[in-house]
Amino acid sequence: MSDATYDVLGVGNAIVDIIAQADEAFLAKHNMPKGGMALIDEAQAHALYADMGSAIEASGGSAANTIAGIASFGGKAAFIGKVKQDTFGEIFSHDLKSIGVNFSTPAATDGPATARCLVLVTDDAQRTMGTHLGACVNLTSDDIDADLVAASAITYLEGYLFDPPAAKEAFRKASAIARQAGRKVALTLSDSFCVHRYKDEFKALIADHIDILFANESEIEALYGSKDISAAANDLAGKIDIAAITLSAKGSLIASGSERVAIPAAPIDELVDTTGAGDLYAAGALYGFSRHLPFAECGRLASLAAAEVIQHYGARPQQPLVELA
Amino acid sequence: MSDATYDVLGVGNAIVDIIAQADEAFLAKHNMPKGGMALIDEAQAHALYADMGSAIEASGGSAANTIAGIASFGGKAAFIGKVKQDTFGEIFSHDLKSIGVNFSTPAATDGPATARCLVLVTDDAQRTMGTHLGACVNLTSDDIDADLVAASAITYLEGYLFDPPAAKEAFRKASAIARQAGRKVALTLSDSFCVHRYKDEFKALIADHIDILFANESEIEALYGSKDISAAANDLAGKIDIAAITLSAKGSLIASGSERVAIPAAPIDELVDTTGAGDLYAAGALYGFSRHLPFAECGRLASLAAAEVIQHYGARPQQPLVELA
Repeated sequence: MSDATYDVLGVGNAIVDIIAQADEAFLAKHNMPKGGMALIDEAQAHALYADMGSAIEASGGSAANTIAGIASFGGKAAFIGKVKQDTFGEIFSHDLKSIGVNFSTPAATDGPATARCLVLVTDDAQRTMGTHLGACVNLTSDDIDADLVAASAITYLEGYLFDPPAAKEAFRKASAIARQAGRKVALTLSDSFCVHRYKDEFKALIADHIDILFANESEIEALYGSKDISAAANDLAGKIDIAAITLSAKGSLIASGSERVAIPAAPIDELVDTTGAGDLYAAGALYGFSRHLPFAECGRLASLAAAEVIQHYGARPQQPLVELA
Repeated sequence: MSDATYDVLGVGNAIVDIIAQADEAFLAKHNMPKGGMALIDEAQAHALYADMGSAIEASGGSAANTIAGIASFGGKAAFIGKVKQDTFGEIFSHDLKSIGVNFSTPAATDGPATARCLVLVTDDAQRTMGTHLGACVNLTSDDIDADLVAASAITYLEGYLFDPPAAKEAFRKASAIARQAGRKVALTLSDSFCVHRYKDEFKALIADHIDILFANESEIEALYGSKDISAAANDLAGKIDIAAITLSAKGSLIASGSERVAIPAAPIDELVDTTGAGDLYAAGALYGFSRHLPFAECGRLASLAAAEVIQHYGARPQQPLVELA
């Protein structure tokens, strides 16, 4: 993969996060399953925003956060995702380009506004999300730049792309081009609710089209109907190159062939907001995988990137990860 | 003042902050005087944004930050300022209303976009700002709701209001109504560059129309042409009810009549971003003044509010100040 122009290309939903504190009663009132991501329409997004507290805004999107992390490690990164030509679209685009990411998907000139995710952070630092996909529904296979995919060592796809219907096709196209070019395809299962929505499709994908998989405990449980992480790791290791399973404060497990590498979590001073923990874990791991670093080192980078992002509000690094590493 | 509906009414520029890290070379390249606030036009704002790093967005504006702080202490607060009907205007309005602030200044439907302030934070946690006033230039005396001013124990004005020409008239109108209604008028000098721009007008204002003044060391120096804080405090105490002079890490001094109360700074764990330090100091102090608390207690609240806001990015409290107090 040393001839690749990019270490990692991310394909995902292009979203700006609106982050506020909330209590459990607020989540209950709005029927938001704690810790999950629920899709909401424009009217629901307006109603939820009107009712939530004072917020800050920051670029987000799962795969986009990961790509920002890879750039922060000094990696060469690119992103494909759909914004509209509006204020949030400008912010999303700026925040990727300003850190050196190739982001050239044309912005929509009409249709729904740039996607926003209303992130409610409870006192325990857990985040619960309501996403209005907006312009993301306009991402189609036409936006998949075949040359960009073929020039990227790893193409990284988020499971959330299965929510906007046309994006699912873009996902499949990107995956097929990457495989044909002899590149690797990585997937994150995104969210246990997302796995429940697309369980059979995800199983088929993993068996046939994915080289590297990221999942957390609840996503594994949703996929396998069992809490047995070790059994899942064995199953995955028989089907794909690398499985990275995150275990919250207990660290993570990287499984590849007969190798099982237990990765400790990195120490933190204060847990503030877990938004982006999985995304930044994936950033460190993918950066390491793309550079063929030993799994223990890939895991160390993954843990420290996750630790950085959970110590402040927002799902993108505030400190250059290359300096922390 | 116990018959007042509002403890404090703020009148100021309605601004959304775009906050990024930067180094000294970046400031030099863009001719930005470190620690200051420079006014920039739309083209400069676009050029600066295009060149600056990945950012987060948060509602700002000096007096608006103070008002948010007063609401966070549990005070009854209102704000007058001009946004446009656009995304940033919606964000600014939401962030005040969601914490219970009366904000009902009509948004402009045409003309320039809602104001933005590009905040560059250097490694030493100092902030340097470029402000595009945008819709703030459309704040006029017509926006000063006389009933609201008369119903507020203290009307708090930011010196920055002297920058948009029509806002200066709004400032004078608000000040006159408050005085006529037997209320107090408070002013912050805002910034030493701002003092240099309007030195004679500020001196006349203080002598004739102001009851409570907030200033830091460099603003005092700009106003008096001398670093002698004690002499300035004596001069101010002879002219106005209360002068609160902030001295950075050395705390602050509250001077009133013959009283001189030295206020220590509140301890912090980590200095991240000094944006809003003066604004939140004013919040704690004004909350205390409006409730007729002893000066030492007003100062304690001021110091703890300032300490909260400098430990994270953004100029509004992230924790309810009433809980910290």
